[in-house]
Amino acid sequence: MIQLRFLKSPLLSSSNILSNFSPKPRTGTLLPHPVTKFKPLSQMDSYSTTTTSSSSSSSSKLLFRQLFEKESSTYTYLLADVNHPDKPALLIDPVDKTVDRDLNVIKELGLKLVYAMNTHVHADHVTGTGLIKSKVPGVKSIISKASGSKADLHVEHGDKVSFGDLFLEVRATPGHTLGCVTYVSGEGPDQPQPRMAFTGDALLIRGCGRTDFQGGSSSQLYKSVHSQIFTLPKDTLIYPAHDYKGFTVSTVGEEIQYNPRLTKDEETFKSIMENLNLSYPKMIDIAVPANLVCGMQDLASKA
Amino acid sequence: MIQLRFLKSPLLSSSNILSNFSPKPRTGTLLPHPVTKFKPLSQMDSYSTTTTSSSSSSSSKLLFRQLFEKESSTYTYLLADVNHPDKPALLIDPVDKTVDRDLNVIKELGLKLVYAMNTHVHADHVTGTGLIKSKVPGVKSIISKASGSKADLHVEHGDKVSFGDLFLEVRATPGHTLGCVTYVSGEGPDQPQPRMAFTGDALLIRGCGRTDFQGGSSSQLYKSVHSQIFTLPKDTLIYPAHDYKGFTVSTVGEEIQYNPRLTKDEETFKSIMENLNLSYPKMIDIAVPANLVCGMQDLASKA
Repeated sequence: MIQLRFLKSPLLSSSNILSNFSPKPRTGTLLPHPVTKFKPLSQMDSYSTTTTSSSSSSSSKLLFRQLFEKESSTYTYLLADVNHPDKPALLIDPVDKTVDRDLNVIKELGLKLVYAMNTHVHADHVTGTGLIKSKVPGVKSIISKASGSKADLHVEHGDKVSFGDLFLEVRATPGHTLGCVTYVSGEGPDQPQPRMAFTGDALLIRGCGRTDFQGGSSSQLYKSVHSQIFTLPKDTLIYPAHDYKGFTVSTVGEEIQYNPRLTKDEETFKSIMENLNLSYPKMIDIAVPANLVCGMQDLASKA
Repeated sequence: MIQLRFLKSPLLSSSNILSNFSPKPRTGTLLPHPVTKFKPLSQMDSYSTTTTSSSSSSSSKLLFRQLFEKESSTYTYLLADVNHPDKPALLIDPVDKTVDRDLNVIKELGLKLVYAMNTHVHADHVTGTGLIKSKVPGVKSIISKASGSKADLHVEHGDKVSFGDLFLEVRATPGHTLGCVTYVSGEGPDQPQPRMAFTGDALLIRGCGRTDFQGGSSSQLYKSVHSQIFTLPKDTLIYPAHDYKGFTVSTVGEEIQYNPRLTKDEETFKSIMENLNLSYPKMIDIAVPANLVCGMQDLASKA
């Protein structure tokens, strides 16, 4: 288990802060958040969306931005704790083509980018993490250990990625690829309500990612979504890595009720996924080698 | 002044409910919300985004969805009061091509669509209001009186559009077109916090609409944005009718600080707008005639 924590003290330098990453669990004042164990959660019947402020008693406050890259229909998410003196921020699934846009808004909002994270090794676009690291020294890239990709920090199921007083849980949700994870905003009075799940390609709005490449498995994807995402409170906001129809958000409750694939039983789901007859992913031979080295294309071309 | 109110009693039929629209101000139990007069508002220095739930003491609750039409890069907004027994809903700036998507999600969420509204007569896409009215009897189209467009209901500066216990203020923000309005979520303990401004093409994220067609005026646009939008609290969320760079939301505070055009003095702004050298809007000769009859293309082609 890993806890990645952006420390509160403004006196710590960037290298000090990031050196607190450790592959072994840590406890004590520097790492006050225990890793949340997964358990059945209460089911709230609400469809309210996009509430991202924390409770009134909280000292932490989430700034949240959803950003879109039109060519690959990819959503990049910017999250920051703006009540923390350093305004630590992270990006989930940045795209190489929109790195300048993302870094510019981060600068304008006065945020300090600490992590550039991926939900998985994307096959349809080159991740922006490599470019971000070259432009903003000190930013650490994060991806799952199971992805087999290079990164500064590797996470596993149950790990926690903290930024200021906010954090994301890591839930392993393989099936689209072997190394897919879903990042879920933390549970607790100081964390955003409703919760937010950044599902990558595991769960899309009224859909899901294909399972015929990169160690994909329809059986595994079915189990991942049902055990790790559909068990979250029904008002949990679903923020996927892509949408092709112009939707920006859904909820766990909606997908449990209306997802045309994942509402089916497992055998029907597997049959659906085996008969999609999708064309070969046009970017896969460029994107995957680059993304396996976290978007460092120069390294990829020399490999 | 007009107050459009979706009444609370579930016993009223759709026609009863909508017949309560009146071009004259009404008071009393059926119309309990006084029209909010515009005044200087407190300036809160916050960049928090997308919080749309109302305060904990409220009996009303906003469901909010931002929807995107890729070809014209148009945002359509769905708002509903989901604590009201009828879950009354409205759409702002629907696009003809995505009407089925929008009506389907409204159906899935169990909402009752009462209004299909436009911020102005669009020149780049055909509004979905005509198609919506043909598919969902009882829905009323709304646009400003100053637009010169046909609609079931015409609004003017200071009017209020209510749905359940929530409402939108109408603020005249001409300049992109003569009839542009901005719809601003209500002020009060039962209304969403932070407030939300649906600015159409008057104010875009780090930009604004062109001013060289449809009665446009750069001088008027400058005054509109500064007097009607930049006077809102700084944490007010800006939801424009379009974005071409993948941004989904901004705030009044950000645009006051970073909008590359509207941070300038009026003379510089006018000079910028006069020297944009934009091409002729490719859809204008199709879209404007259709939109002047609220998207009822059949009527437009016979006109």
